[in-house]
Amino acid sequence: MAGKPELARLSLNQMTVKQWNVREAVAGCVQAGIPSIGLWRDKVAETGLGESARLVREAGLHVSDLCRGGWFPAASETERQARIDDNRRAIEEAAELGADCLVLVCGPASNKDITTARGMVASGLERVLPYAADLGVKLAIEPLHPMFAADRSVITTLSEANRLVRQFASPYLGVIIDVYHVWWDPDVYTSIEEARGHIFGFHVNDWIVPTPDMLNGRGMMGDGVIEIRRLRQAVDAAGYHGPIEVEIFNQAFWDMPGADVLDLMCRRFVEHV
Amino acid sequence: MAGKPELARLSLNQMTVKQWNVREAVAGCVQAGIPSIGLWRDKVAETGLGESARLVREAGLHVSDLCRGGWFPAASETERQARIDDNRRAIEEAAELGADCLVLVCGPASNKDITTARGMVASGLERVLPYAADLGVKLAIEPLHPMFAADRSVITTLSEANRLVRQFASPYLGVIIDVYHVWWDPDVYTSIEEARGHIFGFHVNDWIVPTPDMLNGRGMMGDGVIEIRRLRQAVDAAGYHGPIEVEIFNQAFWDMPGADVLDLMCRRFVEHV
Repeated sequence: MAGKPELARLSLNQMTVKQWNVREAVAGCVQAGIPSIGLWRDKVAETGLGESARLVREAGLHVSDLCRGGWFPAASETERQARIDDNRRAIEEAAELGADCLVLVCGPASNKDITTARGMVASGLERVLPYAADLGVKLAIEPLHPMFAADRSVITTLSEANRLVRQFASPYLGVIIDVYHVWWDPDVYTSIEEARGHIFGFHVNDWIVPTPDMLNGRGMMGDGVIEIRRLRQAVDAAGYHGPIEVEIFNQAFWDMPGADVLDLMCRRFVEHV
Repeated sequence: MAGKPELARLSLNQMTVKQWNVREAVAGCVQAGIPSIGLWRDKVAETGLGESARLVREAGLHVSDLCRGGWFPAASETERQARIDDNRRAIEEAAELGADCLVLVCGPASNKDITTARGMVASGLERVLPYAADLGVKLAIEPLHPMFAADRSVITTLSEANRLVRQFASPYLGVIIDVYHVWWDPDVYTSIEEARGHIFGFHVNDWIVPTPDMLNGRGMMGDGVIEIRRLRQAVDAAGYHGPIEVEIFNQAFWDMPGADVLDLMCRRFVEHV
Protein backbone atom coordinates (compact mmCIF):
# COMPACT_ATOMS: atom_id res chain seq x y z
CA MET A 1 0.00 0.00 0.00
CA ALA A 2 1.13 3.50 -0.82
CA GLY A 3 -0.26 4.88 2.41
CA LYS A 4 -0.91 8.38 3.64
CA PRO A 5 1.61 9.38 6.29
CA GLU A 6 -1.04 11.00 8.48
CA LEU A 7 -2.95 7.72 8.58
CA ALA A 8 0.10 5.54 9.22
CA ARG A 9 -1.07 4.51 12.71
CA LEU A 10 -4.80 4.34 11.95
CA SER A 11 -6.62 1.05 12.34
CA LEU A 12 -10.28 0.35 11.66
CA ASN A 13 -11.98 -1.77 14.29
CA GLN A 14 -14.46 -3.50 12.08
CA MET A 15 -17.30 -3.05 14.57
CA THR A 16 -17.25 0.64 13.62
CA VAL A 17 -18.72 -0.53 10.31
CA LYS A 18 -20.71 -3.50 11.56
CA GLN A 19 -22.78 -3.31 8.38
CA TRP A 20 -19.77 -4.72 6.51
CA ASN A 21 -18.39 -8.23 6.46
CA VAL A 22 -14.64 -8.93 6.56
CA ARG A 23 -14.29 -8.75 2.77
CA GLU A 24 -16.05 -5.38 2.60
CA ALA A 25 -14.12 -3.99 5.57
CA VAL A 26 -10.80 -5.05 4.04
CA ALA A 27 -11.73 -3.48 0.72
CA GLY A 28 -12.88 -0.33 2.51
CA CYS A 29 -9.54 0.00 4.30
CA VAL A 30 -7.60 -0.42 1.07
CA GLN A 31 -9.79 2.14 -0.66
CA ALA A 32 -9.41 4.67 2.19
CA GLY A 33 -5.68 4.12 2.69
CA ILE A 34 -6.11 2.68 6.19
CA PRO A 35 -3.18 0.35 6.85
CA SER A 36 -4.55 -1.74 9.78
CA ILE A 37 -7.71 -3.48 10.85
CA GLY A 38 -9.07 -4.89 14.12
CA LEU A 39 -11.23 -7.96 13.54
CA TRP A 40 -14.09 -9.57 15.46
CA ARG A 41 -14.45 -13.30 15.84
CA ASP A 42 -18.10 -13.47 14.80
CA LYS A 43 -17.33 -11.59 11.60
CA VAL A 44 -14.29 -13.76 10.94
CA ALA A 45 -16.36 -16.92 11.49
CA GLU A 46 -18.99 -15.66 9.06
CA THR A 47 -16.43 -15.17 6.28
CA GLY A 48 -14.31 -18.14 7.37
CA LEU A 49 -11.05 -18.02 9.29
CA GLY A 50 -8.79 -19.09 6.41
CA GLU A 51 -10.52 -16.80 3.95
CA SER A 52 -10.35 -13.86 6.37
CA ALA A 53 -6.64 -14.46 6.92
CA ARG A 54 -6.10 -14.61 3.16
CA LEU A 55 -8.09 -11.42 2.56
CA VAL A 56 -6.13 -9.29 5.04
CA ARG A 57 -2.80 -10.78 3.95
CA GLU A 58 -3.40 -10.21 0.25
CA ALA A 59 -4.60 -6.69 0.92
CA GLY A 60 -1.39 -6.01 2.82
CA LEU A 61 -3.32 -5.04 5.92
CA HIS A 62 -1.84 -5.26 9.38
CA VAL A 63 -4.18 -6.88 11.96
CA SER A 64 -4.02 -4.75 15.10
CA ASP A 65 -6.08 -7.14 17.21
CA LEU A 66 -8.77 -9.77 17.37
CA CYS A 67 -11.84 -9.15 19.56
CA ARG A 68 -12.31 -10.97 21.82
CA GLY A 69 -11.46 -13.54 24.42
CA GLY A 70 -11.93 -13.34 28.16
CA TRP A 71 -15.30 -13.68 29.94
CA PHE A 72 -13.68 -15.85 32.61
CA PRO A 73 -16.06 -15.83 35.62
CA ALA A 74 -18.85 -18.40 35.59
CA ALA A 75 -21.00 -20.20 38.14
CA SER A 76 -19.53 -23.69 37.73
CA GLU A 77 -16.16 -25.27 36.97
CA THR A 78 -17.71 -26.83 33.84
CA GLU A 79 -18.72 -23.42 32.57
CA ARG A 80 -15.36 -21.92 33.47
CA GLN A 81 -13.62 -24.71 31.55
CA ALA A 82 -15.83 -24.01 28.54
CA ARG A 83 -14.65 -20.38 28.67
CA ILE A 84 -11.04 -21.54 28.81
CA ASP A 85 -11.62 -23.77 25.78
CA ASP A 86 -13.14 -20.86 23.93
CA ASN A 87 -10.17 -18.67 24.80
CA ARG A 88 -7.84 -21.32 23.41
CA ARG A 89 -9.77 -21.26 20.13
CA ALA A 90 -9.58 -17.46 20.10
CA ILE A 91 -5.81 -17.67 20.60
CA GLU A 92 -5.54 -20.05 17.64
CA GLU A 93 -7.60 -17.68 15.51
CA ALA A 94 -5.46 -14.70 16.51
CA ALA A 95 -2.35 -16.68 15.56
CA GLU A 96 -3.74 -17.61 12.15
CA LEU A 97 -4.80 -14.02 11.46
CA GLY A 98 -1.41 -12.69 12.54
CA ALA A 99 -3.10 -10.30 14.97
CA ASP A 100 -0.90 -8.14 17.23
CA CYS A 101 -2.94 -9.37 20.18
CA LEU A 102 -6.16 -10.95 21.38
CA VAL A 103 -8.34 -8.48 23.27
CA LEU A 104 -9.68 -9.80 26.58
CA VAL A 105 -12.98 -8.50 27.89
CA CYS A 106 -12.85 -10.21 31.23
CA GLY A 107 -16.56 -10.78 31.87
CA PRO A 108 -19.05 -10.04 34.68
CA ALA A 109 -19.65 -11.90 37.92
CA SER A 110 -22.23 -14.66 37.78
CA ASN A 111 -23.65 -13.52 41.12
CA LYS A 112 -23.18 -10.56 43.47
CA ASP A 113 -19.67 -11.56 44.47
CA ILE A 114 -17.48 -9.30 42.34
CA THR A 115 -14.39 -10.04 44.44
CA THR A 116 -14.56 -13.77 43.70
CA ALA A 117 -15.22 -13.00 40.05
CA ARG A 118 -12.01 -10.96 39.95
CA GLY A 119 -10.20 -13.98 41.32
CA MET A 120 -11.69 -16.09 38.51
CA VAL A 121 -10.26 -13.63 35.99
CA ALA A 122 -6.79 -14.16 37.46
CA SER A 123 -7.28 -17.96 37.45
CA GLY A 124 -8.47 -17.84 33.86
CA LEU A 125 -5.45 -15.84 32.78
CA GLU A 126 -3.22 -18.34 34.51
CA ARG A 127 -4.82 -21.15 32.53
CA VAL A 128 -4.71 -19.55 29.07
CA LEU A 129 -1.44 -17.63 29.21
CA PRO A 130 0.87 -20.62 28.61
CA TYR A 131 -1.06 -21.55 25.45
CA ALA A 132 -0.89 -17.96 24.20
CA ALA A 133 2.87 -17.97 24.79
CA ASP A 134 3.21 -21.29 22.94
CA LEU A 135 1.45 -19.82 19.92
CA GLY A 136 3.19 -16.44 20.21
CA VAL A 137 -0.09 -14.59 20.75
CA LYS A 138 -0.20 -11.61 23.07
CA LEU A 139 -3.22 -11.25 25.37
CA ALA A 140 -4.43 -7.72 26.04
CA ILE A 141 -6.70 -7.04 29.02
CA GLU A 142 -9.10 -4.23 28.17
CA PRO A 143 -10.42 -2.57 31.32
CA LEU A 144 -13.99 -1.48 30.59
CA HIS A 145 -15.81 1.56 31.88
CA PRO A 146 -17.26 0.91 35.36
CA MET A 147 -20.78 1.16 33.95
CA PHE A 148 -20.11 -2.27 32.41
CA ALA A 149 -19.00 -3.86 35.69
CA ALA A 150 -22.25 -5.81 36.09
CA ASP A 151 -22.61 -7.17 32.58
CA ARG A 152 -19.27 -7.16 30.73
CA SER A 153 -16.14 -6.77 32.82
CA VAL A 154 -15.26 -6.84 36.48
CA ILE A 155 -11.94 -5.27 35.47
CA THR A 156 -12.85 -1.60 35.42
CA THR A 157 -9.69 0.48 35.71
CA LEU A 158 -6.34 0.57 33.98
CA SER A 159 -4.72 0.44 37.40
CA GLU A 160 -6.39 -2.91 38.14
CA ALA A 161 -5.43 -4.27 34.70
CA ASN A 162 -1.85 -3.19 35.34
CA ARG A 163 -1.86 -5.05 38.65
CA LEU A 164 -2.94 -8.25 36.87
CA VAL A 165 -0.22 -7.79 34.27
CA ARG A 166 2.43 -7.30 36.94
CA GLN A 167 1.16 -10.37 38.78
CA PHE A 168 1.97 -12.61 35.80
CA ALA A 169 5.01 -10.74 34.53
CA SER A 170 4.75 -12.38 31.10
CA PRO A 171 5.70 -10.69 27.81
CA TYR A 172 2.46 -12.18 26.48
CA LEU A 173 0.17 -10.30 28.86
CA GLY A 174 -0.56 -6.58 28.59
CA VAL A 175 -3.36 -4.05 28.26
CA ILE A 176 -5.49 -2.30 25.67
CA ILE A 177 -6.25 1.30 26.55
CA ASP A 178 -9.55 2.58 25.16
CA VAL A 179 -10.21 6.28 25.79
CA TYR A 180 -13.94 5.62 26.26
CA HIS A 181 -13.27 3.35 29.20
CA VAL A 182 -10.56 5.33 31.00
CA TRP A 183 -10.99 9.06 30.28
CA TRP A 184 -12.88 9.79 33.53
CA ASP A 185 -10.24 8.23 35.79
CA PRO A 186 -8.43 10.73 38.07
CA ASP A 187 -5.41 8.40 37.97
CA VAL A 188 -5.43 7.71 34.24
CA TYR A 189 -2.15 9.47 33.41
CA THR A 190 -0.34 7.74 36.27
CA SER A 191 -1.80 4.41 35.17
CA ILE A 192 -0.75 4.97 31.55
CA GLU A 193 2.80 5.60 32.70
CA GLU A 194 2.63 2.47 34.86
CA ALA A 195 1.55 0.51 31.78
CA ARG A 196 4.85 1.32 30.06
CA GLY A 197 6.17 -1.77 28.31
CA HIS A 198 2.89 -3.65 28.32
CA ILE A 199 0.60 -1.42 26.25
CA PHE A 200 -0.53 -3.69 23.42
CA GLY A 201 -3.09 -1.39 21.84
CA PHE A 202 -4.84 1.97 21.94
CA HIS A 203 -8.48 2.55 20.97
CA VAL A 204 -10.14 5.89 20.26
CA ASN A 205 -13.70 7.20 19.94
CA ASP A 206 -15.54 9.80 22.04
CA TRP A 207 -17.98 10.26 24.92
CA ILE A 208 -21.06 12.15 23.73
CA VAL A 209 -23.11 14.29 26.15
CA PRO A 210 -25.75 13.21 26.81
CA THR A 211 -24.84 9.60 26.11
CA PRO A 212 -27.57 8.25 23.84
CA ASP A 213 -27.05 4.60 24.86
CA MET A 214 -24.78 2.90 27.38
CA LEU A 215 -23.52 0.25 24.98
CA ASN A 216 -24.08 1.69 21.53
CA GLY A 217 -23.78 5.39 22.19
CA ARG A 218 -20.13 6.02 21.46
CA GLY A 219 -19.19 9.04 19.44
CA MET A 220 -16.81 9.85 16.60
CA MET A 221 -13.63 11.57 17.74
CA GLY A 222 -14.34 15.27 18.16
CA ASP A 223 -18.04 14.85 18.93
CA GLY A 224 -17.60 14.45 22.67
CA VAL A 225 -15.69 15.51 25.74
CA ILE A 226 -12.66 13.20 25.82
CA GLU A 227 -9.23 14.81 25.64
CA ILE A 228 -8.17 12.29 23.01
CA ARG A 229 -4.97 13.97 21.89
CA ARG A 230 -3.70 14.40 25.44
CA LEU A 231 -4.37 10.72 26.13
CA ARG A 232 -2.70 9.70 22.86
CA GLN A 233 0.34 11.77 23.71
CA ALA A 234 0.50 10.15 27.15
CA VAL A 235 0.29 6.68 25.60
CA ASP A 236 3.02 7.66 23.12
CA ALA A 237 5.15 9.01 25.95
CA ALA A 238 4.73 5.66 27.72
CA GLY A 239 6.41 4.03 24.75
CA TYR A 240 3.50 2.78 22.65
CA HIS A 241 3.97 3.47 18.95
CA GLY A 242 1.65 0.86 17.41
CA PRO A 243 -1.72 1.10 15.66
CA ILE A 244 -4.46 3.37 16.97
CA GLU A 245 -7.78 1.70 16.46
CA VAL A 246 -11.09 3.48 16.00
CA GLU A 247 -13.77 1.44 17.73
CA ILE A 248 -17.24 2.96 17.76
CA PHE A 249 -20.47 1.17 18.61
CA ASN A 250 -23.22 3.43 17.35
CA GLN A 251 -26.32 2.64 15.33
CA ALA A 252 -26.07 5.96 13.50
CA PHE A 253 -22.80 4.87 11.89
CA TRP A 254 -24.14 1.39 11.16
CA ASP A 255 -26.97 3.02 9.22
CA MET A 256 -24.55 5.02 7.03
CA PRO A 257 -22.73 3.77 3.93
CA GLY A 258 -19.51 2.26 5.28
CA ALA A 259 -17.30 4.31 2.96
CA ASP A 260 -18.78 7.52 4.36
CA VAL A 261 -18.03 6.36 7.91
CA LEU A 262 -14.41 5.67 6.91
CA ASP A 263 -14.09 9.03 5.21
CA LEU A 264 -15.33 10.87 8.31
CA MET A 265 -13.20 8.67 10.56
CA CYS A 266 -10.01 9.44 8.62
CA ARG A 267 -10.63 13.19 8.79
CA ARG A 268 -11.44 13.11 12.50
CA PHE A 269 -8.42 10.93 13.20
CA VAL A 270 -6.13 13.57 11.71
CA GLU A 271 -7.93 16.43 13.47
CA HIS A 272 -8.43 14.96 16.94
CA VAL A 273 -6.05 12.06 17.55
CA MET B 1 -41.78 8.56 67.73
CA ALA B 2 -42.09 5.02 69.05
CA GLY B 3 -39.82 3.67 66.33
CA LYS B 4 -39.10 0.17 65.16
CA PRO B 5 -35.62 -0.94 66.22
CA GLU B 6 -34.87 -2.54 62.83
CA LEU B 7 -35.56 0.79 61.13
CA ALA B 8 -33.57 2.89 63.60
CA ARG B 9 -30.95 3.87 61.01
CA LEU B 10 -33.28 4.15 58.01
CA SER B 11 -33.66 7.48 56.27
CA LEU B 12 -35.88 8.27 53.31
CA ASN B 13 -34.25 10.38 50.65
CA GLN B 14 -37.29 12.21 49.45
CA MET B 15 -36.34 11.80 45.78
CA THR B 16 -37.25 8.12 46.19
CA VAL B 17 -40.85 9.38 46.38
CA LYS B 18 -40.55 12.37 44.08
CA GLN B 19 -44.32 12.28 43.64
CA TRP B 20 -44.62 13.64 47.20
CA ASN B 21 -43.95 17.13 48.52
CA VAL B 22 -42.18 17.73 51.85
CA ARG B 23 -45.40 17.60 53.83
CA GLU B 24 -46.43 14.28 52.29
CA ALA B 25 -42.95 12.79 52.67
CA VAL B 26 -42.80 13.79 56.32
CA ALA B 27 -46.24 12.31 56.97
CA GLY B 28 -45.23 9.15 55.09
CA CYS B 29 -42.13 8.72 57.26
CA VAL B 30 -44.14 9.14 60.45
CA GLN B 31 -46.74 6.66 59.23
CA ALA B 32 -44.09 4.08 58.27
CA GLY B 33 -41.95 4.52 61.38
CA ILE B 34 -38.99 5.92 59.44
CA PRO B 35 -37.03 8.19 61.79
CA SER B 36 -34.97 10.24 59.29
CA ILE B 37 -35.38 12.05 56.01
CA GLY B 38 -33.03 13.44 53.37
CA LEU B 39 -34.41 16.58 51.76
CA TRP B 40 -33.94 18.21 48.35
CA ARG B 41 -33.68 21.95 47.92
CA ASP B 42 -36.24 22.21 45.12
CA LYS B 43 -38.81 20.38 47.21
CA VAL B 44 -37.98 22.48 50.25
CA ALA B 45 -38.33 25.67 48.19
CA GLU B 46 -41.71 24.52 46.91
CA THR B 47 -43.06 24.03 50.45
CA GLY B 48 -41.07 26.91 51.88
CA LEU B 49 -37.90 26.69 53.95
CA GLY B 50 -39.45 27.75 57.27
CA GLU B 51 -42.47 25.56 56.80
CA SER B 52 -40.31 22.56 55.82
CA ALA B 53 -38.14 23.06 58.91
CA ARG B 54 -41.25 23.27 61.07
CA LEU B 55 -42.76 20.12 59.52
CA VAL B 56 -39.73 17.92 60.14
CA ARG B 57 -39.18 19.35 63.62
CA GLU B 58 -42.76 18.85 64.72
CA ALA B 59 -42.78 15.33 63.30
CA GLY B 60 -39.66 14.55 65.32
CA LEU B 61 -37.77 13.57 62.17
CA HIS B 62 -34.01 13.71 61.95
CA VAL B 63 -32.71 15.35 58.73
CA SER B 64 -29.89 13.17 57.45
CA ASP B 65 -28.87 15.56 54.69
CA LEU B 66 -29.86 18.27 52.26
CA CYS B 67 -29.29 17.69 48.51
CA ARG B 68 -27.46 19.48 47.12
CA GLY B 69 -24.66 21.97 46.75
CA GLY B 70 -21.53 21.70 44.66
CA TRP B 71 -21.46 22.12 40.87
CA PHE B 72 -18.29 24.21 41.14
CA PRO B 73 -16.65 24.21 37.68
CA ALA B 74 -17.86 26.84 35.23
CA ALA B 75 -16.49 28.65 32.20
CA SER B 76 -16.12 32.12 33.75
CA GLU B 77 -15.26 33.61 37.11
CA THR B 78 -18.70 35.26 37.14
CA GLU B 79 -20.38 31.89 36.77
CA ARG B 80 -18.12 30.29 39.35
CA GLN B 81 -18.98 33.08 41.80
CA ALA B 82 -22.68 32.47 41.15
CA ARG B 83 -22.14 28.84 42.09
CA ILE B 84 -20.36 29.90 45.29
CA ASP B 85 -23.27 32.18 46.15
CA ASP B 86 -25.68 29.34 45.58
CA ASN B 87 -23.63 27.06 47.83
CA ARG B 88 -23.76 29.68 50.57
CA ARG B 89 -27.56 29.73 50.30
CA ALA B 90 -27.59 25.92 50.44
CA ILE B 91 -25.46 26.03 53.59
CA GLU B 92 -27.92 28.45 55.18
CA GLU B 93 -30.81 26.17 54.25
CA ALA B 94 -29.03 23.12 55.69
CA ALA B 95 -28.44 25.04 58.91
CA GLU B 96 -32.08 26.06 59.21
CA LEU B 97 -33.25 22.50 58.51
CA GLY B 98 -30.82 21.07 61.04
CA ALA B 99 -29.45 18.68 58.41
CA ASP B 100 -26.51 16.45 59.33
CA CYS B 101 -24.75 17.67 56.20
CA LEU B 102 -25.08 19.32 52.83
CA VAL B 103 -24.42 16.86 49.98
CA LEU B 104 -22.03 18.17 47.34
CA VAL B 105 -22.37 16.92 43.77
CA CYS B 106 -19.28 18.57 42.41
CA GLY B 107 -20.35 19.22 38.82
CA PRO B 108 -18.97 18.49 35.34
CA ALA B 109 -16.30 20.33 33.38
CA SER B 110 -17.51 23.17 31.18
CA ASN B 111 -15.18 22.00 28.40
CA LYS B 112 -12.94 18.99 27.72
CA ASP B 113 -10.46 19.89 30.44
CA ILE B 114 -11.44 17.61 33.31
CA THR B 115 -8.17 18.24 35.14
CA THR B 116 -8.80 21.98 35.38
CA ALA B 117 -12.40 21.29 36.40
CA ARG B 118 -11.10 19.16 39.28
CA GLY B 119 -8.99 22.12 40.34
CA MET B 120 -12.11 24.31 40.28
CA VAL B 121 -13.78 21.87 42.66
CA ALA B 122 -10.92 22.28 45.12
CA SER B 123 -11.05 26.09 44.73
CA GLY B 124 -14.79 26.05 45.24
CA LEU B 125 -14.45 24.00 48.43
CA GLU B 126 -11.84 26.42 49.69
CA ARG B 127 -14.26 29.30 49.17
CA VAL B 128 -17.34 27.74 50.80
CA LEU B 129 -15.81 25.77 53.63
CA PRO B 130 -15.24 28.70 56.02
CA TYR B 131 -18.89 29.72 55.71
CA ALA B 132 -20.02 26.14 56.37
CA ALA B 133 -17.82 26.06 59.47
CA ASP B 134 -19.24 29.41 60.65
CA LEU B 135 -22.76 28.02 60.41
CA GLY B 136 -21.82 24.59 61.77
CA VAL B 137 -22.85 22.80 58.58
CA LYS B 138 -20.88 19.79 57.40
CA LEU B 139 -20.19 19.48 53.67
CA ALA B 140 -20.22 15.95 52.23
CA ILE B 141 -18.59 15.29 48.86
CA GLU B 142 -20.49 12.56 47.06
CA PRO B 143 -18.31 10.89 44.44
CA LEU B 144 -20.58 9.90 41.56
CA HIS B 145 -20.32 6.88 39.29
CA PRO B 146 -17.83 7.51 36.45
CA MET B 147 -20.67 7.38 33.94
CA PHE B 148 -21.68 10.80 35.28
CA ALA B 149 -18.20 12.31 34.83
CA ALA B 150 -19.25 14.33 31.78
CA ASP B 151 -22.51 15.77 33.04
CA ARG B 152 -22.67 15.69 36.85
CA SER B 153 -19.41 15.19 38.71
CA VAL B 154 -15.74 15.19 37.87
CA ILE B 155 -15.20 13.56 41.26
CA THR B 156 -15.75 9.91 40.41
CA THR B 157 -14.13 7.75 43.08
CA LEU B 158 -14.19 7.61 46.85
CA SER B 159 -10.41 7.64 46.77
CA GLU B 160 -10.41 11.00 45.00
CA ALA B 161 -13.02 12.40 47.40
CA ASN B 162 -10.87 11.22 50.32
CA ARG B 163 -7.87 13.04 48.86
CA LEU B 164 -9.87 16.28 48.72
CA VAL B 165 -10.99 15.81 52.31
CA ARG B 166 -7.42 15.21 53.49
CA GLN B 167 -6.27 18.28 51.57
CA PHE B 168 -8.53 20.55 53.64
CA ALA B 169 -8.36 18.62 56.92
CA SER B 170 -11.49 20.33 58.25
CA PRO B 171 -14.04 18.68 60.55
CA TYR B 172 -16.64 20.26 58.27
CA LEU B 173 -15.58 18.39 55.12
CA GLY B 174 -16.24 14.70 54.54
CA VAL B 175 -17.86 12.23 52.15
CA ILE B 176 -21.17 10.59 51.36
CA ILE B 177 -20.80 6.99 50.24
CA ASP B 178 -23.56 5.81 47.89
CA VAL B 179 -23.38 2.13 46.97
CA TYR B 180 -24.60 2.86 43.43
CA HIS B 181 -21.62 5.07 42.74
CA VAL B 182 -18.85 3.00 44.33
CA TRP B 183 -19.77 -0.70 44.22
CA TRP B 184 -17.72 -1.46 41.07
CA ASP B 185 -14.48 0.02 42.44
CA PRO B 186 -11.71 -2.57 43.01
CA ASP B 187 -10.39 -0.31 45.79
CA VAL B 188 -13.72 0.44 47.44
CA TYR B 189 -13.04 -1.38 50.72
CA THR B 190 -9.65 0.25 51.09
CA SER B 191 -11.19 3.63 50.31
CA ILE B 192 -13.97 3.11 52.87
CA GLU B 193 -11.38 2.37 55.53
CA GLU B 194 -9.44 5.47 54.45
CA ALA B 195 -12.62 7.51 54.88
CA ARG B 196 -12.72 6.64 58.58
CA GLY B 197 -13.60 9.72 60.61
CA HIS B 198 -15.01 11.69 57.70
CA ILE B 199 -17.95 9.56 56.56
CA PHE B 200 -20.92 11.90 56.83
CA GLY B 201 -23.54 9.67 55.23
CA PHE B 202 -24.31 6.36 53.55
CA HIS B 203 -26.82 5.88 50.73
CA VAL B 204 -28.28 2.59 49.51
CA ASN B 205 -30.20 1.37 46.44
CA ASP B 206 -29.20 -1.22 43.82
CA TRP B 207 -27.72 -1.67 40.34
CA ILE B 208 -30.19 -3.46 38.08
CA VAL B 209 -29.00 -5.58 35.15
CA PRO B 210 -29.57 -4.45 32.50
CA THR B 211 -29.69 -0.85 33.68
CA PRO B 212 -32.93 0.61 32.29
CA ASP B 213 -31.68 4.22 32.33
CA MET B 214 -28.38 5.83 33.27
CA LEU B 215 -29.89 8.49 35.51
CA ASN B 216 -33.27 7.12 36.52
CA GLY B 217 -32.64 3.39 36.45
CA ARG B 218 -31.67 2.67 40.03
CA GLY B 219 -33.14 -0.33 41.72
CA MET B 220 -34.62 -1.16 45.11
CA MET B 221 -32.23 -2.96 47.43
CA GLY B 222 -32.27 -6.65 46.54
CA ASP B 223 -33.23 -6.15 42.90
CA GLY B 224 -29.68 -5.83 41.63
CA VAL B 225 -26.09 -6.97 41.96
CA ILE B 226 -24.62 -4.74 44.65
CA GLU B 227 -23.29 -6.44 47.80
CA ILE B 228 -25.10 -3.88 49.94
CA ARG B 229 -24.72 -5.63 53.29
CA ARG B 230 -21.00 -6.14 52.83
CA LEU B 231 -20.58 -2.46 51.97
CA ARG B 232 -22.74 -1.43 54.93
CA GLN B 233 -20.67 -3.59 57.25
CA ALA B 234 -17.48 -2.03 55.87
CA VAL B 235 -18.87 1.46 56.44
CA ASP B 236 -19.90 0.46 59.98
CA ALA B 237 -16.44 -0.98 60.58
CA ALA B 238 -14.96 2.33 59.47
CA GLY B 239 -16.83 3.98 62.33
CA TYR B 240 -19.98 5.33 60.69
CA HIS B 241 -23.09 4.70 62.74
CA GLY B 242 -25.43 7.37 61.39
CA PRO B 243 -28.50 7.26 59.17
CA ILE B 244 -28.61 5.02 56.09
CA GLU B 245 -30.51 6.78 53.38
CA VAL B 246 -32.44 5.09 50.61
CA GLU B 247 -32.04 7.16 47.46
CA ILE B 248 -33.62 5.72 44.32
CA PHE B 249 -34.25 7.58 41.08
CA ASN B 250 -36.66 5.41 39.14
CA GLN B 251 -39.83 6.32 37.29
CA ALA B 252 -41.44 3.01 38.27
CA PHE B 253 -41.40 4.05 41.94
CA TRP B 254 -42.55 7.57 41.12
CA ASP B 255 -45.60 6.03 39.44
CA MET B 256 -46.52 4.01 42.54
CA PRO B 257 -48.46 5.27 45.59
CA GLY B 258 -45.78 6.68 47.88
CA ALA B 259 -46.91 4.61 50.87
CA ASP B 260 -46.39 1.42 48.84
CA VAL B 261 -42.86 2.50 47.97
CA LEU B 262 -42.12 3.12 51.65
CA ASP B 263 -43.58 -0.22 52.65
CA LEU B 264 -41.41 -2.07 50.13
CA MET B 265 -38.39 0.04 51.06
CA CYS B 266 -38.72 -0.78 54.76
CA ARG B 267 -38.93 -4.51 54.08
CA ARG B 268 -35.98 -4.48 51.69
CA PHE B 269 -33.95 -2.38 54.11
CA VAL B 270 -34.32 -5.04 56.78
CA GLU B 271 -33.61 -7.88 54.36
CA HIS B 272 -30.70 -6.46 52.38
CA VAL B 273 -29.02 -3.62 54.28
